[in-house]
Amino acid sequence: MGGLTVIVDTARSRFAKLHPVPIEKVRLKDNFWAPKLKIIQEITLPSQYKLLYDTGRVFNFRRAAGKEKGDFQGLVFNDSDVYKWLEAAAFSYAYDPSPDLLAKSREIIDEIAAAQDEDGYLDTYFTFERKIERWKNLRDLHELYCAGHLMQAAVAFYRATGEGKILDIACRFADHIISIFGPNKRMGVPGHPEVEMALVELYRTVGKKEYLDLAVFFVDNRGKRLIGGSPYHIDHEPFRKLTEIVGHAVRALYLNCGATDIYLETGDETLFDALMRLWHNLTGQKIYLTGGAGARHEGEAFGDNYELPNARAYAETCAAIANFMWNWRMLLATCDGAFTDIMELALYNGILSGISLDGRRYFYVNPLADRGRHRRQEWFYCACCPPNIARLIASLPGYFYSTSDNGIWVHLYAGSEAHVKLGDNEVTLLQETNYPWNGEVDIMVNPKKEDVFSMYIRVPGWCRDANINVNGEKLEGKLQPGGYVEINRLWRSGDKIHLSLAMPIDRIISHPHVAENNGKVALKRGPIVYCLERADNPGFDVWDVVLPDDAPLNAEYMPDMLGGIVTIRSEALAADSEKFGRRLYAPKAEVKHEMRRVKFTAIPYYAWANREEGPMTVWIKSI
Amino acid sequence: MGGLTVIVDTARSRFAKLHPVPIEKVRLKDNFWAPKLKIIQEITLPSQYKLLYDTGRVFNFRRAAGKEKGDFQGLVFNDSDVYKWLEAAAFSYAYDPSPDLLAKSREIIDEIAAAQDEDGYLDTYFTFERKIERWKNLRDLHELYCAGHLMQAAVAFYRATGEGKILDIACRFADHIISIFGPNKRMGVPGHPEVEMALVELYRTVGKKEYLDLAVFFVDNRGKRLIGGSPYHIDHEPFRKLTEIVGHAVRALYLNCGATDIYLETGDETLFDALMRLWHNLTGQKIYLTGGAGARHEGEAFGDNYELPNARAYAETCAAIANFMWNWRMLLATCDGAFTDIMELALYNGILSGISLDGRRYFYVNPLADRGRHRRQEWFYCACCPPNIARLIASLPGYFYSTSDNGIWVHLYAGSEAHVKLGDNEVTLLQETNYPWNGEVDIMVNPKKEDVFSMYIRVPGWCRDANINVNGEKLEGKLQPGGYVEINRLWRSGDKIHLSLAMPIDRIISHPHVAENNGKVALKRGPIVYCLERADNPGFDVWDVVLPDDAPLNAEYMPDMLGGIVTIRSEALAADSEKFGRRLYAPKAEVKHEMRRVKFTAIPYYAWANREEGPMTVWIKSI
Repeated sequence: MGGLTVIVDTARSRFAKLHPVPIEKVRLKDNFWAPKLKIIQEITLPSQYKLLYDTGRVFNFRRAAGKEKGDFQGLVFNDSDVYKWLEAAAFSYAYDPSPDLLAKSREIIDEIAAAQDEDGYLDTYFTFERKIERWKNLRDLHELYCAGHLMQAAVAFYRATGEGKILDIACRFADHIISIFGPNKRMGVPGHPEVEMALVELYRTVGKKEYLDLAVFFVDNRGKRLIGGSPYHIDHEPFRKLTEIVGHAVRALYLNCGATDIYLETGDETLFDALMRLWHNLTGQKIYLTGGAGARHEGEAFGDNYELPNARAYAETCAAIANFMWNWRMLLATCDGAFTDIMELALYNGILSGISLDGRRYFYVNPLADRGRHRRQEWFYCACCPPNIARLIASLPGYFYSTSDNGIWVHLYAGSEAHVKLGDNEVTLLQETNYPWNGEVDIMVNPKKEDVFSMYIRVPGWCRDANINVNGEKLEGKLQPGGYVEINRLWRSGDKIHLSLAMPIDRIISHPHVAENNGKVALKRGPIVYCLERADNPGFDVWDVVLPDDAPLNAEYMPDMLGGIVTIRSEALAADSEKFGRRLYAPKAEVKHEMRRVKFTAIPYYAWANREEGPMTVWIKSI
Repeated sequence: MGGLTVIVDTARSRFAKLHPVPIEKVRLKDNFWAPKLKIIQEITLPSQYKLLYDTGRVFNFRRAAGKEKGDFQGLVFNDSDVYKWLEAAAFSYAYDPSPDLLAKSREIIDEIAAAQDEDGYLDTYFTFERKIERWKNLRDLHELYCAGHLMQAAVAFYRATGEGKILDIACRFADHIISIFGPNKRMGVPGHPEVEMALVELYRTVGKKEYLDLAVFFVDNRGKRLIGGSPYHIDHEPFRKLTEIVGHAVRALYLNCGATDIYLETGDETLFDALMRLWHNLTGQKIYLTGGAGARHEGEAFGDNYELPNARAYAETCAAIANFMWNWRMLLATCDGAFTDIMELALYNGILSGISLDGRRYFYVNPLADRGRHRRQEWFYCACCPPNIARLIASLPGYFYSTSDNGIWVHLYAGSEAHVKLGDNEVTLLQETNYPWNGEVDIMVNPKKEDVFSMYIRVPGWCRDANINVNGEKLEGKLQPGGYVEINRLWRSGDKIHLSLAMPIDRIISHPHVAENNGKVALKRGPIVYCLERADNPGFDVWDVVLPDDAPLNAEYMPDMLGGIVTIRSEALAADSEKFGRRLYAPKAEVKHEMRRVKFTAIPYYAWANREEGPMTVWIKSI
């Protein structure tokens, strides 16, 4: 087997409206994503591989296998970083089969295999003297979380290579977990959700219904206070009663992924209703403009409604990734472009900011303003984010297209070639575009045999003026932003869709209750959120900029800047905050507002902190 | 003895410029503070006394004494609540000797006495099976913190009553601590500062130099990483190297109290220089308009410079109290009214908000904006704040006046009578004023025998137009706000000073880097910070108010409202945030700004949340 590395395999999911197109079938040929995928494979994954060894993470497996002596190293969930790396490597291999990556992956799999117990149990922390602690503290010790990442890695590697060794390991562990937990067996809830979506995907891969049942069991047991009942653990209420997205952001969003996966298999509308409530709360009250999620450092958690500090944002890279993953599942369930909008928003902003342009450094926390001290790091003691962003970017080709019963759905735009199976036909799609810098997209539709089917073309929610031509003929009527335009016709090889998305620079404002953003605007062009950074604006403090509403904003493509970006330039005013002096508060009548004219350059948010340190801000005061 | 209950006894402190006037010598006769002191004695202290029993805090002492069986109850530092209550009771007794309060205090002292070990050790947590843990974890277990509160309670009770039993207990424990810690003995640093200022005060009370030396030892050992080196514990740098006030706010401010007390005794300028740096950082970058301190819930800690969220403010009541206590010590060292300004600011706002008008409920956290969920509680599992605010208000008469070599300093204004010893003379001061609602203050100066001395009259920093008459004759020249005006003359009984402080309503703005306050004003009149609360403004959401700069603001005294307050009324605009709908972000060009005219009423911040729930905000959008 091999060559069918799909992301969320809904091919047989009864309640999925969309089905995946494998990574292998999509070839990126653009200047934006293609180089990033190359960096992931050539820089990021090899450097992370080395760090897995250097930081004791592989050692822990070798120790568990009896090959090494010494104590378990690092955090209790360090196994998961190895699994996430393996999953990322599998995606990267699927896209671009590298013998070196395959060799490294097999080596890691051998280390994992040797660490598994006879009974299938596999977690290197709970070995030797800590063997008696197994399954004793589901709340804090991440056993099921690590198990979930093993399963995801196993599925991905199996799909990418056809090699079953790691899949067998994962199934043996899953079978062991089934022997422990379930109705009439032990009750339990994972302290950190993750295994739910992994179990569903394992079920999809090997067809064993018990895996799905166990995922359902874990979701159903939430809110029974088996793990203490805290909102942090999303255990304060049964999942179906939730109305507000709260608690640890990654936990909450991974849980939503799992619940959506269950819905895709079971059609349980009570789950879907809860998911929609949580989604509306997230997107209407709690998401950052960048697609980032989780306002609070305290507990890495969601804050109250409209609590969205900028410099003090948490917006963990993993939470933005989890947000992307959840919205993908919601899209598969609904065909609703509102979910694709959130995916795209997170992807180009709050996720992509998590990795440096050179692929060697990472943000764990993604603030929307900073004084210059926040810099990407090579690694973290708690290193969840680096392999997570590697696996997300490596898997990206798998998110570009879907199929439904009668057609092909185009979700993301980038110069690319795809071979999409549609029934017994195969359609080659050639995208030509400079997206995200330009909203003109050509899509050549080349079916192997001519046929009537639908092409569903996404019109992003941010676009208020979209037009579509097919073979030069304009589609009539206004295209609603935030959805998919269905073009049903007889498609012949050489047919060409032209999508034109007007991409003006928008001044975005926030809901009035987002306290830090009152009276401020953020600049956004297409899917890209902008920021001001010191490196481009050395003559003034970017926190002091005041942008008049009528100042013209000029977009310009700069091919040699930060990997090729569109900058936004304008003239604005700058107050001199230094003149406020030592005073923190002063009567307004006593303070003179002296402002000077300045020229500024804004860059895409994702690209900040790749040059010298200095203040940065997404939200700009406006008058 | 008795009858000399001074707050920080600098009578013999070589580097103090000011010396205290005892609580007993000041009688409040106003409508603002006098009723509050009565409530503290009649409502707050009896209800807290009952809670000390109901929550196991007294039980812990009885258990340690072998009178009760069972486990230690509650948090490891629960002894300190008993001590703080006793200190508060001593201050209250000094002001208004209540036989009931004395009986209760003696009863508590008997319980404490019985719990003390033969060797002087006294901490009810470290008894029986935990005796072996004594002094093993100075970072987390609050032994020295509890010891400090014992010493402060002992000093206060001894001063108030002349009864030495609790003072002996405290000295025996202090002697025990000296037997353990010091140069050539065990190294150590308290994880939670407090004992430093207590030891200095114990030294002042009984004259034992070793107590002062131990306080110096504890301050000098900070930054040596004896307790882990975290900024949270203010152990990341030696005290004298600190440039930024960081870490747990109460820890930081109590530490500053102790360091200032040491300076007052030793004149160590290197300490004073560090204290001034910290003070400028606090007041220039990190203090709330309310005098509250500590922006972050995470670690109950100071945030970065200008990190001052409103709804998410921490601003622990104890931190505002600690701020007041520290500034008092700085004032004693300098005679600089800048410190009195901070005391007054904290007192009328961030401290007073900590207790309900009826004296029965408390805020631990004091946000400057809220959606209506934050309400005062009767008690807390971690109950540091309730007895702390009781002791602060009970001790308030001791902060009104000081003496220096040549005169009397008037710090606070309230209708009152005071008998101040000045050399071998005694001066009776009669204040008549409706402060803080009115800036007109009459001070009758009645020396027992006529004499030349100085009266130092404080002109608050908030006042930009102050005038002083003496016997109807105006002092010439402009009076600088934020200092003390010296009036040196021959004072005869019946002389009258009239101070006139213009008290307009100010629109206050923040430094441009306080992100949540950009484009907003707060209303302040005299020392009182105002807020908008739903209870007075039912027709609109107070978070939506937009106040035009030219809207007239009207102050009116309302004797029957919230214990008697001055309200501020005006007309403003209100945007309807509901109209933003489910959207969190939108292009500015798409959003119509519909605003309607509304009439609003603002009340003093300290009085909020005494009626029905609803949104509240200090900072108001302005145009």
